[in-house]
Amino acid sequence: MRIDGREANQLRPVSLDLHFIKHPEGSVLISCGETKVICNASIEDRVPPFLRGEGKGWITAEYSMLPRATNERTIRESSKGKVSGRTMEIQRLIGRALRSVVDLELLGERTIWIDCDVIQADGGTRTASITGAYVAMVIAISKLVESKGIKMPVTDYLAAISVGIGKNSELLLDLNYQEDSDAQVDMNVVMTGTGKFVELQGTGEEATFSRQELNSLLDLAEKGIHDLINIQKKALGELISETK
Amino acid sequence: MRIDGREANQLRPVSLDLHFIKHPEGSVLISCGETKVICNASIEDRVPPFLRGEGKGWITAEYSMLPRATNERTIRESSKGKVSGRTMEIQRLIGRALRSVVDLELLGERTIWIDCDVIQADGGTRTASITGAYVAMVIAISKLVESKGIKMPVTDYLAAISVGIGKNSELLLDLNYQEDSDAQVDMNVVMTGTGKFVELQGTGEEATFSRQELNSLLDLAEKGIHDLINIQKKALGELISETK
Amino acid sequence: MRIDGREANQLRPVSLDLHFIKHPEGSVLISCGETKVICNASIEDRVPPFLRGEGKGWITAEYSMLPRATNERTIRESSKGKVSGRTMEIQRLIGRALRSVVDLELLGERTIWIDCDVIQADGGTRTASITGAYVAMVIAISKLVESKGIKMPVTDYLAAISVGIGKNSELLLDLNYQEDSDAQVDMNVVMTGTGKFVELQGTGEEATFSRQELNSLLDLAEKGIHDLINIQKKALGELISETK
Amino acid sequence: MRIDGREANQLRPVSLDLHFIKHPEGSVLISCGETKVICNASIEDRVPPFLRGEGKGWITAEYSMLPRATNERTIRESSKGKVSGRTMEIQRLIGRALRSVVDLELLGERTIWIDCDVIQADGGTRTASITGAYVAMVIAISKLVESKGIKMPVTDYLAAISVGIGKNSELLLDLNYQEDSDAQVDMNVVMTGTGKFVELQGTGEEATFSRQELNSLLDLAEKGIHDLINIQKKALGELISETK
Amino acid sequence: MRIDGREANQLRPVSLDLHFIKHPEGSVLISCGETKVICNASIEDRVPPFLRGEGKGWITAEYSMLPRATNERTIRESSKGKVSGRTMEIQRLIGRALRSVVDLELLGERTIWIDCDVIQADGGTRTASITGAYVAMVIAISKLVESKGIKMPVTDYLAAISVGIGKNSELLLDLNYQEDSDAQVDMNVVMTGTGKFVELQGTGEEATFSRQELNSLLDLAEKGIHDLINIQKKALGELISETK
Amino acid sequence: MRIDGREANQLRPVSLDLHFIKHPEGSVLISCGETKVICNASIEDRVPPFLRGEGKGWITAEYSMLPRATNERTIRESSKGKVSGRTMEIQRLIGRALRSVVDLELLGERTIWIDCDVIQADGGTRTASITGAYVAMVIAISKLVESKGIKMPVTDYLAAISVGIGKNSELLLDLNYQEDSDAQVDMNVVMTGTGKFVELQGTGEEATFSRQELNSLLDLAEKGIHDLINIQKKALGELISETK
Repeated sequence: MRIDGREANQLRPVSLDLHFIKHPEGSVLISCGETKVICNASIEDRVPPFLRGEGKGWITAEYSMLPRATNERTIRESSKGKVSGRTMEIQRLIGRALRSVVDLELLGERTIWIDCDVIQADGGTRTASITGAYVAMVIAISKLVESKGIKMPVTDYLAAISVGIGKNSELLLDLNYQEDSDAQVDMNVVMTGTGKFVELQGTGEEATFSRQELNSLLDLAEKGIHDLINIQKKALGELISETK
Repeated sequence: MRIDGREANQLRPVSLDLHFIKHPEGSVLISCGETKVICNASIEDRVPPFLRGEGKGWITAEYSMLPRATNERTIRESSKGKVSGRTMEIQRLIGRALRSVVDLELLGERTIWIDCDVIQADGGTRTASITGAYVAMVIAISKLVESKGIKMPVTDYLAAISVGIGKNSELLLDLNYQEDSDAQVDMNVVMTGTGKFVELQGTGEEATFSRQELNSLLDLAEKGIHDLINIQKKALGELISETK
Repeated sequence: MRIDGREANQLRPVSLDLHFIKHPEGSVLISCGETKVICNASIEDRVPPFLRGEGKGWITAEYSMLPRATNERTIRESSKGKVSGRTMEIQRLIGRALRSVVDLELLGERTIWIDCDVIQADGGTRTASITGAYVAMVIAISKLVESKGIKMPVTDYLAAISVGIGKNSELLLDLNYQEDSDAQVDMNVVMTGTGKFVELQGTGEEATFSRQELNSLLDLAEKGIHDLINIQKKALGELISETK
Repeated sequence: MRIDGREANQLRPVSLDLHFIKHPEGSVLISCGETKVICNASIEDRVPPFLRGEGKGWITAEYSMLPRATNERTIRESSKGKVSGRTMEIQRLIGRALRSVVDLELLGERTIWIDCDVIQADGGTRTASITGAYVAMVIAISKLVESKGIKMPVTDYLAAISVGIGKNSELLLDLNYQEDSDAQVDMNVVMTGTGKFVELQGTGEEATFSRQELNSLLDLAEKGIHDLINIQKKALGELISETK
Repeated sequence: MRIDGREANQLRPVSLDLHFIKHPEGSVLISCGETKVICNASIEDRVPPFLRGEGKGWITAEYSMLPRATNERTIRESSKGKVSGRTMEIQRLIGRALRSVVDLELLGERTIWIDCDVIQADGGTRTASITGAYVAMVIAISKLVESKGIKMPVTDYLAAISVGIGKNSELLLDLNYQEDSDAQVDMNVVMTGTGKFVELQGTGEEATFSRQELNSLLDLAEKGIHDLINIQKKALGELISETK
Repeated sequence: MRIDGREANQLRPVSLDLHFIKHPEGSVLISCGETKVICNASIEDRVPPFLRGEGKGWITAEYSMLPRATNERTIRESSKGKVSGRTMEIQRLIGRALRSVVDLELLGERTIWIDCDVIQADGGTRTASITGAYVAMVIAISKLVESKGIKMPVTDYLAAISVGIGKNSELLLDLNYQEDSDAQVDMNVVMTGTGKFVELQGTGEEATFSRQELNSLLDLAEKGIHDLINIQKKALGELISETK
């Protein structure tokens, strides 16, 4: 029994609040338990310099936390004048993950900017960001498909989840902040709707892990991703089915 | 008749969603029409270097907009590596305004950090920030009063509003983004519950304004502030009345 | 009787030393009592990106203080690697004020750079900067009028002054550093030669102020602006009269 | 047959040039094929602020490439004034990996600084950095063990290698730059001498990968790590055997 | 005959305007022809970290140019957010030069901050800065001698001058901007009142120079330094003679 | 007799390891005693903005030290986010020195980037950088001469050396770190193969120096430069003789 009463292989309650902010082309507030992230997708009609004239699009992400998303106030990165290594790692991860399920040639010479702003954090902010950003991105791209007549470039569903080995060596799905702080091993998994891996990042700073433990963690992650994608399907409904 | 159907002297609908984020000592989501700002107040048990050993507290504010709070995506200040002049002006204004209604000696050697994060913008973000931040600050300070047994240091209510002269020379209260873009003269007024001025910032970039126009604008602002403080009173209820 | 022997409504001695630096198109050393600011105006034959192709000009200002303009040496902003919020606020104010009396379409696609460098500070540096910068700008623009045959784009005189409420609640015009440090309320007023307001910034960090006090402060400011504009008229002489 | 004539499961020639630079406590030049990295370990007698007084040590890493380590000259990060996201990711990875095989309490209140400077790059610079840095760190720590009489805090061997899926879907060990550029899937694996995982980072930007492919990649990585650790054992010889 | 009518070995008119700014402990406006530099000396009662507890003082310098000190407006270093290599070179040179004629142990644990702000430039700004800063420093130190009763720590006079080889291979003393732009070889020489070298920096970007040419340039520099030190002696008068 | 057993006028052992790094157009590892610098020359087919369309080339240099090139670890300039004044001075010096022996018009609209990375420091890193960078540059330019058929633009040999006055007033050639730390006077001299001066930088922070001492130092420097250029000639061999 976990500290919040969940089963080992149970997700926290997930909600997707679509069209949360009015200006972006796609906007979702994702809540995974007490973790809440505003995911906005913006479409820009040009690509970064390294892609100009290639006839392909690009997807890039930025991630940030409000200073009091956390229990102790953290200093604003704009005040420090630089973005931390942790933030850079996360935004690079979100961008790579989303690009894996979009046909960038079908997208055309456009950039999709993903902004993930964590307004309340309780563990799993990077995986919640990917799962929510996917939904915001699909909404934004659907508008493009409709208004510009391009072929739907999204090729699959996509979600992310954390798994880990707790302080008593128990296997855990979707760790909250307390569990994450206590964990011996922490792994983030990004998978598609067809069950393929996109990213796998496992780290055992407090402890190493065996091949067998890895296999058990991956089983747990596959279960969690499957549940998340069902929630995405329900939220996106007709939208994604008609466009795919 | 204004573009959103309001009277010249009518505020947009205002709502105060208390305890919006769970971690901060005080947290409010303020909505003024389509402008939405998360206002968080954090208490830190020390003061900046220039105040150490003076037996007085400090209140400081930071302000930021999500990139897609606006119609066009704006670049994140953390990515640019510096805070804009506009942001600095606003956060200095919020801090000064709040300090005017708090007895810093009663507060003791503590800093109150105010974070105003605009998640959706439609004009008047700085005045909404002050009006919302006041409420978040009172909630945070009330907890201090209760837990530390200090005497209530908040000395008055405080709210802020914009007034302006529109493109057809009409006087306007609480300008939305469209009205603000078209305005000839724009003025931000911060006042207390007892009807005193705290800050007055009027600017006529497109046009100058006469002493008589100034007087009419101030009449309008007084009316708006009065309405806002009534909303604050209702939201804070017992909290402020019992602590004052 | 004030600490330097002035009447409440009396300006400090003002001098305008024209053509102080040889390179700029317009250059003035303004002294207001012990406050001394070098105001240089430079003309550049292009506009910032947001104005390109609009057929309009732009006026922008930078403000700085020498490290020992003040009683205690302050750290150079170039050494700190960033410009303070106070500096940004002031340079934005100077730019807005000057743009209010110039017809930017008559100016054509040119930028006027105003540099206000305070070499000695004794209160009122931002208002002295505006009053002096106006004169430097007129000199620079007059050369343009002569050499390029454009129509004189300067539409009015412009000056700025501070007023305030002192520690004994006395109303004061043109506060020096000591008076400014002691003041309960501080207000900066920018007005045109025809008596219209351009900017009004009043702040009561130590105290709030009533509508009646505001009115008395504005009366005082109008008197001071009138005196300053007379000094500008004398200094500019034929220059402005023939070109207007 | 691979472009450089290797078998699919064959490492590039590896050499470890010990004591390469004279000043550091530990120094190694590691060559993995044409990739060459100077790995220096420095010992500092204090820890970062977050660990002070905890009685534990710390290990941190910095990574950099000379501008012409690469085929095209890259801009120096000191000239740009900021460290890229890629660099931050790599230096965080190196630090975490090394900390996993050191008992930080035995190390005592000391920091080991690892500097990995790539002087020539041909793929696999982050894994070569970890493998070489481990050796430099052991040399530095051995000196501490000898001079300070602490118990040997290094608990296991440690090496890292890349595996991937090539453009023709072939599985590859230790990809060079050309193979890495062409790869569909790229994975970096850090393991200990006892065959446990420390870090696992797999990414399929061009393609996703199945659970079965993951298993084949991990088999390949285990083989490569085993070979690397044998090379480390030979290089460290008595040093590590007598101190463990 | 030179472009401004001087002899080859003739200085431009030099003036030293003592006590130019009221706040600093020492302040001089030096004019060398059209080059004008405000030199301020400030005394701080502590030393930088690397000297704490050594019982010695320190002298450090900062140098800056107003944007319109030059013919074309240059961007402010505070706006660019960093100090240029040229500025750093010059401020390091000024600091070293002044330290060479001060007994830092007699100075005691104090820092003298030298600020050289060029308000108008016409060549030779770094040498004018040194010559003027020496005078400002002596004034500031004299006050220390008087108020703190320390023994006079200034050990000698100090001045600096430029020499060069012009476009027609003529030898020139004290080059103005035009001459400096045309010069084949440019050399800055800092010397003491007793004729010893403190700094010698010669550079021949457009041309190299022979040992014989070097000797002729040094003869010229010695003559110029001698003239400058006579001017310093006259300006400082009793001050330096009674304190030495 | 010097601390490392050399004569006063004797260089440390010098070696030039050509083609040290495989990617750059020119690459040399220069060792001067225990000082080791990797000098890479890169050719870029465009020039900086200020030279565009002038039909001339440019040579620019960057200099850096690995953190443990020194006895105590120094902080990486990329981590500090800015390049130090010392680094800037050195890289400006290297660039100027190399430009003095290249006909930039013959070079054509190309930039040669010189990167000098000190991997081990024991005094004289800036002079070793110039001497080594010259060789790397000649190798790179020779390839241009061959592949593009331009006329050889290198006009002379070039080397640099330090001379100084030691703590016992002895004259010293090629100071190592210990000698440099103890020296009263330190001078860096850059000369051509035909015995002309390119740069001369002498500084006496601890002591001043007379005209006669200067002459003795220059004699010593000429001897050292002569020896260095003989070593360059041997290393470059046919390369430079056939191309000149």
